[in-house]
Amino acid sequence: MTTARTIAVAGASGYAGGEILRLLLGHPGYRDGSLSLGALTAGGNAGTLLGQHHPHLVPLAHRELTDTSSERLAGHDVVFLALPHGKSAEIAAALPESTLVVDCGADFRLTDASAWDRWYGGEYAGHWPYGLPELPGARAALSTATRIAVPGCYPTASTLAMAPAVAAGIVSPEVSVVAVSGTSGAGKSARVDLIGSEVMGSVRPYGVAGAHRHTPEIAQNLGAIAGTEVTVSFTPVLAPMPRGILATCSAPTTATAEQARAVYEKFCADEPFLHLLPAGSLPQTGSVIGSNAVQLQVVVDADAGRLIAFAAIDNLTKGTAGGAVQSMNLALGLPETDGLDTVGVAP
Amino acid sequence: MTTARTIAVAGASGYAGGEILRLLLGHPGYRDGSLSLGALTAGGNAGTLLGQHHPHLVPLAHRELTDTSSERLAGHDVVFLALPHGKSAEIAAALPESTLVVDCGADFRLTDASAWDRWYGGEYAGHWPYGLPELPGARAALSTATRIAVPGCYPTASTLAMAPAVAAGIVSPEVSVVAVSGTSGAGKSARVDLIGSEVMGSVRPYGVAGAHRHTPEIAQNLGAIAGTEVTVSFTPVLAPMPRGILATCSAPTTATAEQARAVYEKFCADEPFLHLLPAGSLPQTGSVIGSNAVQLQVVVDADAGRLIAFAAIDNLTKGTAGGAVQSMNLALGLPETDGLDTVGVAP
Amino acid sequence: MTTARTIAVAGASGYAGGEILRLLLGHPGYRDGSLSLGALTAGGNAGTLLGQHHPHLVPLAHRELTDTSSERLAGHDVVFLALPHGKSAEIAAALPESTLVVDCGADFRLTDASAWDRWYGGEYAGHWPYGLPELPGARAALSTATRIAVPGCYPTASTLAMAPAVAAGIVSPEVSVVAVSGTSGAGKSARVDLIGSEVMGSVRPYGVAGAHRHTPEIAQNLGAIAGTEVTVSFTPVLAPMPRGILATCSAPTTATAEQARAVYEKFCADEPFLHLLPAGSLPQTGSVIGSNAVQLQVVVDADAGRLIAFAAIDNLTKGTAGGAVQSMNLALGLPETDGLDTVGVAP
Amino acid sequence: MTTARTIAVAGASGYAGGEILRLLLGHPGYRDGSLSLGALTAGGNAGTLLGQHHPHLVPLAHRELTDTSSERLAGHDVVFLALPHGKSAEIAAALPESTLVVDCGADFRLTDASAWDRWYGGEYAGHWPYGLPELPGARAALSTATRIAVPGCYPTASTLAMAPAVAAGIVSPEVSVVAVSGTSGAGKSARVDLIGSEVMGSVRPYGVAGAHRHTPEIAQNLGAIAGTEVTVSFTPVLAPMPRGILATCSAPTTATAEQARAVYEKFCADEPFLHLLPAGSLPQTGSVIGSNAVQLQVVVDADAGRLIAFAAIDNLTKGTAGGAVQSMNLALGLPETDGLDTVGVAP
Repeated sequence: MTTARTIAVAGASGYAGGEILRLLLGHPGYRDGSLSLGALTAGGNAGTLLGQHHPHLVPLAHRELTDTSSERLAGHDVVFLALPHGKSAEIAAALPESTLVVDCGADFRLTDASAWDRWYGGEYAGHWPYGLPELPGARAALSTATRIAVPGCYPTASTLAMAPAVAAGIVSPEVSVVAVSGTSGAGKSARVDLIGSEVMGSVRPYGVAGAHRHTPEIAQNLGAIAGTEVTVSFTPVLAPMPRGILATCSAPTTATAEQARAVYEKFCADEPFLHLLPAGSLPQTGSVIGSNAVQLQVVVDADAGRLIAFAAIDNLTKGTAGGAVQSMNLALGLPETDGLDTVGVAP
Repeated sequence: MTTARTIAVAGASGYAGGEILRLLLGHPGYRDGSLSLGALTAGGNAGTLLGQHHPHLVPLAHRELTDTSSERLAGHDVVFLALPHGKSAEIAAALPESTLVVDCGADFRLTDASAWDRWYGGEYAGHWPYGLPELPGARAALSTATRIAVPGCYPTASTLAMAPAVAAGIVSPEVSVVAVSGTSGAGKSARVDLIGSEVMGSVRPYGVAGAHRHTPEIAQNLGAIAGTEVTVSFTPVLAPMPRGILATCSAPTTATAEQARAVYEKFCADEPFLHLLPAGSLPQTGSVIGSNAVQLQVVVDADAGRLIAFAAIDNLTKGTAGGAVQSMNLALGLPETDGLDTVGVAP
Repeated sequence: MTTARTIAVAGASGYAGGEILRLLLGHPGYRDGSLSLGALTAGGNAGTLLGQHHPHLVPLAHRELTDTSSERLAGHDVVFLALPHGKSAEIAAALPESTLVVDCGADFRLTDASAWDRWYGGEYAGHWPYGLPELPGARAALSTATRIAVPGCYPTASTLAMAPAVAAGIVSPEVSVVAVSGTSGAGKSARVDLIGSEVMGSVRPYGVAGAHRHTPEIAQNLGAIAGTEVTVSFTPVLAPMPRGILATCSAPTTATAEQARAVYEKFCADEPFLHLLPAGSLPQTGSVIGSNAVQLQVVVDADAGRLIAFAAIDNLTKGTAGGAVQSMNLALGLPETDGLDTVGVAP
Repeated sequence: MTTARTIAVAGASGYAGGEILRLLLGHPGYRDGSLSLGALTAGGNAGTLLGQHHPHLVPLAHRELTDTSSERLAGHDVVFLALPHGKSAEIAAALPESTLVVDCGADFRLTDASAWDRWYGGEYAGHWPYGLPELPGARAALSTATRIAVPGCYPTASTLAMAPAVAAGIVSPEVSVVAVSGTSGAGKSARVDLIGSEVMGSVRPYGVAGAHRHTPEIAQNLGAIAGTEVTVSFTPVLAPMPRGILATCSAPTTATAEQARAVYEKFCADEPFLHLLPAGSLPQTGSVIGSNAVQLQVVVDADAGRLIAFAAIDNLTKGTAGGAVQSMNLALGLPETDGLDTVGVAP
């Protein structure tokens, strides 16, 4: 028997860190001892117990959070980074090349330094293999990677919704996305505009007209698939639910509904997490909560001349921590679906 | 002093009927006795007390619901119809021309018989003055009307969001709408897909690709404003909240943000219920609950070449019952804002 | 015509302050000009516009918030204080005796200095006439008051639920209260445990076993009615909704259901805001949102030998700002119900 | 290798049936092939696909529902019954004694025929071993059972909250329970009072004063533990969330907080699903969603002389389907925790 691989999670008191831990606790590798949990680190919460922040993670309630530093994270086989943007580069640089570093932040997602400069600013750190295995060529790149940039939650949903149509060339490269998200996407932040009294019973857009930092990431993904520039009009909308993203994506088309469906069926055929619903059914976020599943549907509005594609994901699972674990599985040579459900908790 | 006008409400046990009654109870005419409530009718709920269906309407708790028929509704000065589609024509035909009939259903909204045929079917009943006073020429038509077709909730939000841009000719006539709605828009219906366990914690689209019957109504409104055909791609999305619609509408533009804002400022300048938010603020449905206010914002995404306009309304108030009362006020020569708040109940 | 009375609101950017303003905007005195709004003050939000904090208060969007100080608040006829506990005494002391000061905080609620010391601490400021007009003798006291202590939200619901039974002596003086509240009762505070992601989809108790500061206030109210000490076991529970309190209160009884109902009917008979529901109906918070109504019901569990009384209120309206306006009306000699609805916004 | 055991689920289109299937899909026995799924049956939904009713159960989407009959259910090793009350007895009688029948309905829960008669009516079918393994003696009984009556959701939470105190004799036998539940406890029923518009933003009691059928079950459980009659005042409250029960239970005590805590620590010490939280922490339903965990806390209100115990569970998991699977595991000689998580999906 081989020695167990050890895993560290930086940013363990936040939502992404907590979800990574939830998934790892259910991972067959954790259960059989071939994966084990090492350092759990935090920023301001260092020195407290994990159970204070994640009372649902009962088996880890008594684990103490240490501070986030490359020293604490050194010596592990896998390091998940669930940190604020801009914090990953320095830590990653201090870790050996052989350590698998899976970054849930944005630092290494963008391939274009000028896009980084416009949407994030600060020094451009470069880009890493992108943790969306369903994209063309991604699995090969991830299987040999020791550095992985996990996609943003909106880009995961929006890219997967439009990728089949864009790849098949059946839409014009002008994509509109309106994506409705639960509140956990905004993180575990003490902000007045996020308190329950403000968000319950209300929906509101934010970061409109290209202001949201996920805009260039969606455009980058779709552009790479199309082999040409794709413009993306992206509007995120906050809805009164903790989890879930429903992306409604559209673009001009001359394809028929049947042609569109055929394209999506082919794209999803062998994908363990992509579920193209039967014609007539539409995705709902409630069906994928806690799972790594992506529910997809495509329709054509012939009057308006537009293809409309929908994707429903759990923003914390497939949109963050599940994508991270899926990528880790590939990089470690484990079965891609280990520890990842396709069955959501519903209702 | 003149005799009080009497008002009947058909469909009083449903959400639209209940909201009409809530607004009338706070109407200055009701408070000073110049408006009084006559028959309250229902279908299957005839013979029960209003309080069983609307425990919030305390002052009317003991009023008995009678059956919905032209006999019961005859003899009133104003009759509100809040009935299933297809039920209004026969009743209206049996009421005197002098009775003000305000129909919250779809029967008399569409000006095009073929659109009626395609989206509703059955005999086309014709069309009545359209109860959206903010549209060009609408107030003049409504002030002399004795028959009024109240707009649908989505058309109210979507039309008002795009009307300024369409009227000013600053967008191409290809409009995309993704509108997120609370559940009361689906009515007080015992349907499994509407029970709380199904809708809470989840968002889902429905009636996509032009299937929703509000699609031709939006196209009709915008086309009339534009003076040319406007295509509308319309996607309604159900969100876990009782009330509210947020319409996110977009179309290709070459206008600048400043040009767009100027157009919207002019359109909203003298409108009592249209509130163009300060630049940088975005509408939220939570701010307009129970009120007749419409919160608007317009932005331009120069990269994508699209103007994006937002409208937030309460679907039951401005989107149905408030629009109905506003239209009644105009038709009766009362101040347009009587009984209608601009202040929502928040948080 | 007399000069308009001017009203100041301290703490205008919070939920209680916002709700006071919402009610005043709909007050007949404000509409006819006999009441007018003067200073709107805030702590850290001084210098900002009201619209930034309360986008629903459209008519006041452009009013600037000034700092909260006795100088700013001087020169008004009425001053509402919606401040953190402990802030009212000094300000009130600096205002003339003739100014009507209505305090929504706890500073002047408790009649027992030792209770103040135990639950709040710091210097005991004394007590003012208690703004719960439905209690025996309260209207007389309030009609001549120039200082009023508005009850807490839980004490309003719990006291009104049990007052009839306690006053009639049909229960033993050992009351249990489990009260489920919406989140706005916790204020507009940037706390991680209040963000939507934490509160949606979850209920949790807090401040249990007498730790909540409303415990002695409930005991004080019921004890005064009973003329003897009443013990109160009080458990508040946070529920995923913005507004509303449902208090479930019980105590040992030997009375029959009929006797209990008769007692409640008598108590509520002439009360404009107390609505004892028909036998078989039960209160729900959704029916009273935005209104000053209190929905009540009483039942007897003969097997368990307990009387169980329920009260549903809107914590921000009858539970805070509505109670404050109701008390102001009495103190100013205005009709008690001015500006206060009995009709909630439902669904 | 032994032959796989086959499992049938009757009532598969409802919430309890769906949750049983969700848990079985994640059961190690299902994953290794030693458990397999046979007939999935339904009433009115027979002939439809499971995916139409449970879009989250992706791996079973194409399974067709057959009608519920003893013929369809015969020939399986395990039969789960998730049927309306009164439907189980006839079916169970037709199945061989050797078949493990796990009934999620009420038919075989009550040991007292007169209690059955009063709360349910119809013929009393008798009683089966009760599927709450945490109760004294229960595991032994369940390990040899071929018929199991799964407890109701409220009785699970309420019994576990008070069992330690009652067993230790530190409370008087007069228990008050106020239990707040999510809406899935009411089933997947097309009822107007359960639609999202009615339940969101509102809490309401129902089935008060002993009217709820879970009242005698709680009294039976606590009475058996106490060895004497225990009166139970039970008030269920519906809250706007899909899942979860928080039971707030109290009874007179003279014990100290420390004594109470010691009693609970001892009771929970070796229980895999009972989690007594650290002193100062309180249970929340959001922490146990989708899991079989029970979060417990006990406090003493010395002023009121009452012990207050809290339990938070997921009503569909530990409260129904999880309890059923836990009982099945015991009866089949499998590890009790197989397929059952202690980690909820949060936030």
